[in-house]
Amino acid sequence: MPERKGNYTISFTNKPQVVGYAAAVGKKESEGPLGSFFDKAFTDELCGEKSFEKAETHLQKTAITTALKKAKITKNDIQCAFAGDLLNQCIGSSFGMRDLKFPFSGLYGACSTMALSLVLSGVFVDSGAAQNTVAAASSHFCSAERQYRYPLEYGGQRPQSAQWTVTGAGCVVLSNQPKHTSRTVIDRAIIGSVRDLNVTDPNNMGAAMAPAAAQTIAQFLTDTDTKPEDYDLILTGDLGSTGSRLLIELLKDENNIDISGVHNDCGVMIFEPETQDVHSGGSGCGCSAAVLCSYILDNMAAGRLKKVFFVGTGALLSPTSTLQKESIPGIAHGVLLINQ
Amino acid sequence: MPERKGNYTISFTNKPQVVGYAAAVGKKESEGPLGSFFDKAFTDELCGEKSFEKAETHLQKTAITTALKKAKITKNDIQCAFAGDLLNQCIGSSFGMRDLKFPFSGLYGACSTMALSLVLSGVFVDSGAAQNTVAAASSHFCSAERQYRYPLEYGGQRPQSAQWTVTGAGCVVLSNQPKHTSRTVIDRAIIGSVRDLNVTDPNNMGAAMAPAAAQTIAQFLTDTDTKPEDYDLILTGDLGSTGSRLLIELLKDENNIDISGVHNDCGVMIFEPETQDVHSGGSGCGCSAAVLCSYILDNMAAGRLKKVFFVGTGALLSPTSTLQKESIPGIAHGVLLINQ
Repeated sequence: MPERKGNYTISFTNKPQVVGYAAAVGKKESEGPLGSFFDKAFTDELCGEKSFEKAETHLQKTAITTALKKAKITKNDIQCAFAGDLLNQCIGSSFGMRDLKFPFSGLYGACSTMALSLVLSGVFVDSGAAQNTVAAASSHFCSAERQYRYPLEYGGQRPQSAQWTVTGAGCVVLSNQPKHTSRTVIDRAIIGSVRDLNVTDPNNMGAAMAPAAAQTIAQFLTDTDTKPEDYDLILTGDLGSTGSRLLIELLKDENNIDISGVHNDCGVMIFEPETQDVHSGGSGCGCSAAVLCSYILDNMAAGRLKKVFFVGTGALLSPTSTLQKESIPGIAHGVLLINQ
Repeated sequence: MPERKGNYTISFTNKPQVVGYAAAVGKKESEGPLGSFFDKAFTDELCGEKSFEKAETHLQKTAITTALKKAKITKNDIQCAFAGDLLNQCIGSSFGMRDLKFPFSGLYGACSTMALSLVLSGVFVDSGAAQNTVAAASSHFCSAERQYRYPLEYGGQRPQSAQWTVTGAGCVVLSNQPKHTSRTVIDRAIIGSVRDLNVTDPNNMGAAMAPAAAQTIAQFLTDTDTKPEDYDLILTGDLGSTGSRLLIELLKDENNIDISGVHNDCGVMIFEPETQDVHSGGSGCGCSAAVLCSYILDNMAAGRLKKVFFVGTGALLSPTSTLQKESIPGIAHGVLLINQ
């Protein structure tokens, strides 16, 4: 049963188990430093579908069905799926759920969606509202680029602070069923609140999201009375290199907390900065979803990482809000994954 | 602590209390049959803001702050807010949450959002993951019309099956704190799965959503071993008159269930069909939110309604999916509200 720990943190007493996980990505991601860890890589950016939006649905469905297979859980055993994406009206997720037929709670947390879906899954599984859940998120470079920025054919230049939307999806299957004997469980979770320090540049999402990440990390450490050194890894996703630098500075300046020794960022990890021309790194719901559901959970399963605080970060803007000269609200949700 | 009841239904043992609720609407809604029940009606469609999108945020914030005041709960006591809307990237909700500063879980369920936010709120409050939550949803005729259909100035004709997007918002505050003595509680909840019977006409959302509503209602009645006559009201939102007719037919044909004696629909209730020129009725996240958080919960508080199964219905399409010739997936989530 979930309990409150401090003002914002939820502590899980039944420790929902990570019984399966998988990541599916595109070609560019498969050529990056984590390429060998992904379950499935598509060389065709349409993934055999007729549009980039349908390709994104295909990616998310691939991650989900692969995770279920690895978990040895059938579709009928899933009592709720929490999923979201960046597309208008979240069609990347909802059209996949039409085929999968799970009870489905649609989420919108921008690039924080993987973390949000894990928090809600955790509460459902820990409390008994569901026995087995799916948490998933996806993004696709081509569907996002043409929706948020320019037609793909335009080929506009991007500033160095811009990030590259990841073509990818990730899925975690959680369970409270005693037959499973997974090493990795969700121990705690925190739902973040919106923070907006008046960043207005939609080509610098890292700067817009870093303040929210700092707030959530500081709140969690206070609530749980822990220090950065208590964790093997504090993993943000996806601040990129610009936002990561700002996060570390903000936490030092505002909270006197130094996470530099244990911090990494999914947007920094997924691409090779020198050769892959992604500027500040990867972004999109699929970035942190794919990194978490491959390299990170693999390392936890192998015991090389034992305590990972995963903090998904999202920029809650829209092209309309930008045209209306609004600043960019950021949000960050966190889950603490531990090995039992 | 939530328990599973049947295959899909969640049963709440601690009975989260409805400790506050409020609805804020626009001028047309205030002139309809339920006009006198809304907490706040704006005569200016911009609600004093500079754009229709900001006006929608204003509506949602008004519903939330009014509900908190009626609940005698301060902003700091809210441990999670669940909210969503129809705008791209859900900016109607996220920009309001920037000011309210609640821990915030963004949802996308199209017009089913009010029901989905109540289901998730119920699980959080029942399980102890939160003591007090906010569940909210909103829509605005002008922001929706120009995003989904045509520029407002165009004045295109609409077929009789089309619905009119409600300018409105609703909010429910739930609590597990024993100091409250509310009559009305959430007893059960069900998260629906996507159903798509290949309806492709975006001017007939009622037909697209009715199959999902039928599925959720039939599942709930099976899980709980109850009959339509066991309820004072089975309230869908927002099928409109076309969708309501189809729902009643579908349940008779497919499940041999007759809900005609206890059914009503928020989209049918909110406007006067003869004089308000809304064709099939109201729609939009704000429709069921505003009707539930005024007339319905008022009648429950007064004891005139004691057992209401509220089923929010959503059409999970986007303008892009329609252009790509996709059919329209529907979803429906339900909560059972009872008087103790």
